[in-house]
Amino acid sequence: MNTHQQALTEYLAAFITGLFQTGVRDVVISPGSRSTPLALLMVEHQELNTYINIDERSAGFFALGLAKASKSPVVLLCTSGTAAANYFPAVVEANLSRVPLLVLTADRPHELREVGAPQAINQLHLYGQHVKWFAEMALPENSKEQLTYSKMVAHRAVKECKSPVSGPVHVNFPLREPLLPALDPYPFSEEQVDYEVVEGELVVPEVTIERIAKDINQSQQGLIICGPMDEPLFSNAVIELAEKLAYPILADPLSQLRLDNSLIIDSYDAILKTESVLEKFQPDFILRFGAMPVSKPLSLFTKKHRGIPHFVVDGQAGWRDPYQLGTKMIQMDETAFCQQMTKYVMKNENNKWLSYWQQIDHLAKMAIKDHMSAEQELEEGKVFYELFPLLPKESAIFVGNSMPIRDVDSFFHKNNRDITVMANRGANGIDGVVSTALGASVYQQPLFLLIGDLSFFHDMNGLLAAKLYELNITIIIVNNDGGGIFSYLPQAESKQHFEVLFGTPTGLDFHHAVQLYNGQYTKITDWDHFSDAIQSAAQHQGLNVIEIPTDRAKNLTSHRKMWDQVSREITTFLHGVEK
Amino acid sequence: MNTHQQALTEYLAAFITGLFQTGVRDVVISPGSRSTPLALLMVEHQELNTYINIDERSAGFFALGLAKASKSPVVLLCTSGTAAANYFPAVVEANLSRVPLLVLTADRPHELREVGAPQAINQLHLYGQHVKWFAEMALPENSKEQLTYSKMVAHRAVKECKSPVSGPVHVNFPLREPLLPALDPYPFSEEQVDYEVVEGELVVPEVTIERIAKDINQSQQGLIICGPMDEPLFSNAVIELAEKLAYPILADPLSQLRLDNSLIIDSYDAILKTESVLEKFQPDFILRFGAMPVSKPLSLFTKKHRGIPHFVVDGQAGWRDPYQLGTKMIQMDETAFCQQMTKYVMKNENNKWLSYWQQIDHLAKMAIKDHMSAEQELEEGKVFYELFPLLPKESAIFVGNSMPIRDVDSFFHKNNRDITVMANRGANGIDGVVSTALGASVYQQPLFLLIGDLSFFHDMNGLLAAKLYELNITIIIVNNDGGGIFSYLPQAESKQHFEVLFGTPTGLDFHHAVQLYNGQYTKITDWDHFSDAIQSAAQHQGLNVIEIPTDRAKNLTSHRKMWDQVSREITTFLHGVEK
Repeated sequence: MNTHQQALTEYLAAFITGLFQTGVRDVVISPGSRSTPLALLMVEHQELNTYINIDERSAGFFALGLAKASKSPVVLLCTSGTAAANYFPAVVEANLSRVPLLVLTADRPHELREVGAPQAINQLHLYGQHVKWFAEMALPENSKEQLTYSKMVAHRAVKECKSPVSGPVHVNFPLREPLLPALDPYPFSEEQVDYEVVEGELVVPEVTIERIAKDINQSQQGLIICGPMDEPLFSNAVIELAEKLAYPILADPLSQLRLDNSLIIDSYDAILKTESVLEKFQPDFILRFGAMPVSKPLSLFTKKHRGIPHFVVDGQAGWRDPYQLGTKMIQMDETAFCQQMTKYVMKNENNKWLSYWQQIDHLAKMAIKDHMSAEQELEEGKVFYELFPLLPKESAIFVGNSMPIRDVDSFFHKNNRDITVMANRGANGIDGVVSTALGASVYQQPLFLLIGDLSFFHDMNGLLAAKLYELNITIIIVNNDGGGIFSYLPQAESKQHFEVLFGTPTGLDFHHAVQLYNGQYTKITDWDHFSDAIQSAAQHQGLNVIEIPTDRAKNLTSHRKMWDQVSREITTFLHGVEK
Repeated sequence: MNTHQQALTEYLAAFITGLFQTGVRDVVISPGSRSTPLALLMVEHQELNTYINIDERSAGFFALGLAKASKSPVVLLCTSGTAAANYFPAVVEANLSRVPLLVLTADRPHELREVGAPQAINQLHLYGQHVKWFAEMALPENSKEQLTYSKMVAHRAVKECKSPVSGPVHVNFPLREPLLPALDPYPFSEEQVDYEVVEGELVVPEVTIERIAKDINQSQQGLIICGPMDEPLFSNAVIELAEKLAYPILADPLSQLRLDNSLIIDSYDAILKTESVLEKFQPDFILRFGAMPVSKPLSLFTKKHRGIPHFVVDGQAGWRDPYQLGTKMIQMDETAFCQQMTKYVMKNENNKWLSYWQQIDHLAKMAIKDHMSAEQELEEGKVFYELFPLLPKESAIFVGNSMPIRDVDSFFHKNNRDITVMANRGANGIDGVVSTALGASVYQQPLFLLIGDLSFFHDMNGLLAAKLYELNITIIIVNNDGGGIFSYLPQAESKQHFEVLFGTPTGLDFHHAVQLYNGQYTKITDWDHFSDAIQSAAQHQGLNVIEIPTDRAKNLTSHRKMWDQVSREITTFLHGVEK
């Protein structure tokens, strides 16, 4: 071993030891030359799981999925050049959805930068404001100081990924040739963790809690809104608080709160399209947790009540209030907040407000059921409506953006089957969804991905991971051949250029794409066929794709018909109450 | 038309008028909601060509290809969110390969930023140091001042794209709902160009030119090296200069200089692997044009002669000198430089040095020919060797990075058939190559893309443009099932983990991928079959994919055998000269 190789090996091994000590287990590597020493050492490390993913964009999202499902930081590694630029969409999503992702990029050394050297791009601060922290490493050296420095940066990088607001971090490694590390003897020792990060946490003093509780008790008709969240203990805590306050919980499908509990309201998206509800239901207080819910009617409803006390609780001390409705921004762990509040708030004995919500929620669901029974043809809403009761207990669903997440909001009703609902709701992109779901499938089984055709198309390359790592996933493609969501937006009024700009039909037969990756493919012809396909999916190993052809115009008509039916039922009921 | 709609329409139409006035004709749009008003107005504009491309990463490279081939700025348009992040790889490539690309991103207005609003990411300076200029537009207003401002930014953005060093520019548009512009009446008037940019140019005084000519005349054994360039008048100018100096021109395949001229040396990559050449051939001066040539032996050769006068001419005033060999960096138009120098340098009557180069170049080509005649099996080098004589006159070839560009360097020999050679040699990525070639195919016909399997895989989504716009392209996939280049690098010595990290076989049958896009697919079985397939390709309309299965180990052996043969022949010749 020469001096260069020894320094290279020990310096990078120290970094990888640091990663391992802070809990990193999964590494997603894209092949390349400059990253060779890091890649070889990571594959050589006996306790790291390494995944090779050729398309760095898919690799980024695959790592995101691993991190979301494992709730641990995941490492990405690529070579110099545009490889690193391909991670950008996943980095942006990780930043907004608070997922710990540690991006390691190999780089040319300083003398080869900005002078026209091959495959050399400016990688300093490559992801700009979209990472929490960026570090440019020194060139490898193996003095005691430099080995400590290398390990320290690993510890710090992982800590930065995890600490609030959690998210992505970028570390850039300039490396000189030759790039081969020494793998013999085994470069990692069972070193004791000699570095500890003792993290402080945000604490709100008891007296402030008490004051907030008093504020809450001023209200008679409060609402609890839970947006996307993934805190295992939160559900019980918020339900106990809601119970004491007799407030309904409007639970987004990604809140993990669509549980079989009478306080949970899950049809609010349909309900809040009804004029009579908007007139009658006048909340005097809103308590909101999590990211913004997907429902637009819910957003409009909260905007309508600008000015009422509106508390936003964010355990990661973020600032999620797009419509500037919040009157109190509370930076405190959500579960702790609920538990403390439950102690301090007075019990509300009047449950009339809650009961109205429960009744119209029930009515809405009955109307939806009637509508669905009458619907014979293949139609998007019914795909989701039919799907959920067929899913095995403890399944996970990963939901694509644009229409699928909206249909899940409408049709994934509360249940006691412990189903995890995941999606990329940081930037709500249609990109990278296949890869994120595949990453999640490593930790969540069985996993069903519900996705539209454009989003599936966008990340077909992600399917290679399913083939190479024999991952088990059932992908349900709702194929309306184009951008279905635009039919619901004002753009649809402009007939000129609509189909070319927004409809964007591709006419692709995805059977070929599935064959490319040796997957099983089923094209659904009717509802019995759909039911059979979903039921047999639970037994299927590997990649399983179920495609449902639908029609954009018909979907719109059917959704509108359903919403009208819901509105009629509720309006009739509310008139009855008045009399 | 209400006030909001009127302001939106007039302000954005003014911008688009500005784009048109400065020569923009091609716009590549990815569907989305926030970008609706710009998209509708662009499609409505009667003289803009609009292309819809769903995957923004492919869209970025497609626009890059259009710009490269049309030599004009091309506009990209997308909605807010990760869509814009997907452009990043193409933006990075455009920046390094000096291609004028104008990225327009729609954005949420200020009040929806960094507050958890859906599909809102921080788009300010999104591409960091990788664009030449970034502008954040004001919100639409239609005062006279604001309409002038909007049009001025369009003029300036296009000017920034084109002026040296040319490259990408990013303009971000915050837009409030509602997003529908008024298309009736036709929103564009046949406005006179009331804005002109008078650009200065870099001029080197005559006296300096004369001094440089004197410096050049100090040398006896000079070399002219031409890297990637695309200046139509340059070839004649540099050949005239070389003729007067009796210097050989070592011409990279992307220099557009592999012309049937005795001064052009094109086998230097093989020649400079020979020890006896390195000993004997001692240049005392190097004059270099263009980006860095692809040949590694050539780089090593120039590094070996560090210290001799080494002039680098760059008409765009860049700084391309990765090995810090330059002793004079000359910022002057390359063609003008050659023309002026030809006037001032004295004629070199001694052509012994040139003649040696010509003789060994000829010998190398004879050795390659012998080697190829003996090669019966399908093998990568021979794909390229066989291909070029079969190409129609005035064809364009687009060359993938990694192995294909190196094989083109070795086997695309000088000819009089006016073949354009293109590649993405800014960052040398294997990403986006399919889309760039398809973009180029709009302006360059017939077009052949030569690409490896991993690079083809990386951008298969790009093929949708071929289907939707019925583009004509012949794609030749050299499929060695994985990363062929690594077999040539030191990584191959490390047997441990080689196949998993560098070989990376995918086992994909691309026939399915081609079927997905309704292309014609041919898998080559032998050399006659290959020859037939290429010859009939010239007649083919639409997407035509020709795949040649090869073997990584066999390629390496065959290449090495060929280089050995070249070395032996040259060494024997040089010994003969000595005696």
